[in-house]
This record gives sequence, C-alpha cells and structure tokens, in this order.
Amino acid sequence: MNSDSTKIPQATAKRLPLYYRFIQNLHSSGKQRVSSAELSEAVKVDSATIRRDFSYFGALGKKGYGYNVSYLLSFFRKTLDQDEVTNVALIGVGNLGTAFLNYNFLKNNNTKIQLAFDIEESKVGTKIGEVPIHHMDELEDTLARLDVPVAILTIPQSAAQTITDRLVQSNIKGILNFTPARLNVPPEIRVHHIDLAIELQSLVYFLKNYPDESVEK
Amino acid sequence: MNSDSTKIPQATAKRLPLYYRFIQNLHSSGKQRVSSAELSEAVKVDSATIRRDFSYFGALGKKGYGYNVSYLLSFFRKTLDQDEVTNVALIGVGNLGTAFLNYNFLKNNNTKIQLAFDIEESKVGTKIGEVPIHHMDELEDTLARLDVPVAILTIPQSAAQTITDRLVQSNIKGILNFTPARLNVPPEIRVHHIDLAIELQSLVYFLKNYPDESVEK
Repeated sequence: MNSDSTKIPQATAKRLPLYYRFIQNLHSSGKQRVSSAELSEAVKVDSATIRRDFSYFGALGKKGYGYNVSYLLSFFRKTLDQDEVTNVALIGVGNLGTAFLNYNFLKNNNTKIQLAFDIEESKVGTKIGEVPIHHMDELEDTLARLDVPVAILTIPQSAAQTITDRLVQSNIKGILNFTPARLNVPPEIRVHHIDLAIELQSLVYFLKNYPDESVEK
Repeated sequence: MNSDSTKIPQATAKRLPLYYRFIQNLHSSGKQRVSSAELSEAVKVDSATIRRDFSYFGALGKKGYGYNVSYLLSFFRKTLDQDEVTNVALIGVGNLGTAFLNYNFLKNNNTKIQLAFDIEESKVGTKIGEVPIHHMDELEDTLARLDVPVAILTIPQSAAQTITDRLVQSNIKGILNFTPARLNVPPEIRVHHIDLAIELQSLVYFLKNYPDESVEK
C-alpha cells in the first residue's frame, strides 16, 4: 500500500494498470526509454494526458530522451502492489462468467479468481480454467474461511441485489458489477459498474455526435 | 443527429445512456419529477455531477421541485436518437460473444445486434438469441450488403488486429473492443476499449488506495 498515491486523481489512477502492462512489454523487449508520443500511440491516450499523469508519479520525461523504462516499471509495480495477489470470487458461471474463468488474469496481473459460485447443480463440483465451482448456498460459509475481498458479479439482474447483500455480509470489500442493476451497498463497499448495453449505446452516441474527435480515455 | 449536443463534454456524454434508462423507469412508474439527490442515489453518480451534467442539457432543477421527468425523457430520447436503430455486428461467438447475443439490447436501447461471425463451422448457420451466425470468411461480402456501422469485438487477442483491418475495409465506423489488444485504426474510426483484466486491477487498486472515498463515475 502506497499512501503517497492517494494524491493521484482517480482518473489518472484508472489508467495505471494500462500503463503498467505496456511498460512491462517494453521492458521485456529490452527497451530502455520511451517517449510520451510512443506511449500515446501504444495505449491510445493522448500524450498531454500521459505527461500530466506521469508528472503525478514524479516521472518527468526529458526532452529528446523520454522516460526511463526501468524507473516506470518499478514505480508501477510498487504502486499497483504487483507482488501481492488479491483473491477474487466469481459469482455466476453463465457465458460471461465462463469467459472470465477462461481468461488468464494472473498473466499480467495481481488478481486471481480463486473460486466461483453458481446455482446450477450440473456445474457445482466442476472446474473451469482450474477454478472450482461451489453451490451458491455455500457462499457465506465458504467465503468466511477464505481471504477474498473482491467479487465479480455475473448473475441475472433479478438476483443482483439479494446476492450483493449476502456478499456484503461475507466481508467482500469490492464488487465488479456486470449486471444492469445499480446496487445498494454500505458506503465502505466499492462497486465498479460495467454495463454492456450502456457501453454500446455510448459508442453509438459518440459516433453520431463526435464523429471527428479523438477518443478521450 | 443533434448538432447542439456536440457541446456536451465527453465525460457527461458517457453518462447520458445511464440517465436515460433511469428516467425511462421513473416515467413508466408514473413519477412526474425527480430531485438530483434521488437521481444520485439511483444511478450512483454524485449529485453535484448530475446538476452540472443536467445544466448542459438546459435542464435546470428548481429548488424543492427537482427536474421534470417528461422534459428529461424527451430530451434524452431526442439526444440519444432513440427512434433510430443502429445495426451492430458481433465478431466472435465464444462465451463473451454468446453472453452479448443472449442479452436483449433492444429492450432499453437503440442498438441491435443483427448478425454475428465466427470461424467455428458448428456455429455457422445457427442462431443465438435470434441472431444468425455467419462464417468469418463471409465478413466483407456480408457487411457490404448491409448498413452495419458498429462491431463488437469478442475474439482472441491474436486475431484482433487482422479482423479489425477487415472491419475497417468493410465500412465499420465504431468498434467496441473487448480484446486486450490496443487496435490501430484510421483516425476516423472510433474504438471504445473494455479490458476486463484492467477493470479488475483498477478495482483492486482503488480498494487499496482510496478506501474511504466514494466512486467517481
């Protein structure tokens, strides 16, 4: 945990994992420095935003030199706590949940889906992507035995609030919500919401109304 | 198309579909006015942001009265072009793609997935959620016959750039990219990127570093 980083604006913080992954790739390929223009091209964030973001990290690029890749790598690794794995529970093993389980999060990441829950008897006791699937009835008992602060919610909207209430009782601190439901949680619980329909509608709106502008990230 | 709305900041524009859906629900339930505090509670955006956003729409809430629901509904419907359906192609019918096809976008929306593409022979010629699945080899020929400006990309990362190049040749204007790849496209093509691993990593970072702050949307 890096108390300094609490001063980083949230919009900047959201781009950290993206920067980190690209810097990792650069480092692996043996590159020692990178310009904001190269970074901008690779991560599709405009270079003024990159320079501003990096100034919060104390990473000041030098004219004609750019940024030091090793410095950035160690900064991001420390800031993103890459040496500490956070356990995640996946709630709902439908198509979207299965996509998550098949996705290897640990590859570039500090998170690991340790277990999944579903109500479907035929799925309970099986594994997908090496992740065991438990019955939803065992949610509280199973989570009580483990250190799992994060849940991914990929269940039908109709069950979202009920299951959320049970997750909050089970000491979950953060929820990545893929249901269209807006969840009611106590203020200390963080919910990030990804609504697939709204993302699509937003893209269409931007296509119609900002046809000539570049994308803000 | 509403040329006035080009003055709305992009961050505000991103919240329009969210506001619209909630206002629709309020209108259906017969509610005639709504306060920014009620809106804030329902959509989980802080009320100062809502008031600022709504001021761009010319919707000025009255103290002790709030906003007129009918006015907001007709504003959002017009601005979001709800009477015009935009056709969408889904590229890649794996688990994530199948989740999209089963999701009824048209319910609250102005977008419709009209067709899907995959390389798997067993899927070609079938339908999921009433959407026909074509072979990827037919991508160019099929899209040339139809008006489909938007594609959802749910294919493996390794195929992402190649397929994107083919989509650009097929007159796709916007891509909702669910692969981890950062896509290279001509400047007139809009790409919105949703990276599931980065969303998860971002949530973990916020949990560790902003434990007491509310979520900015």
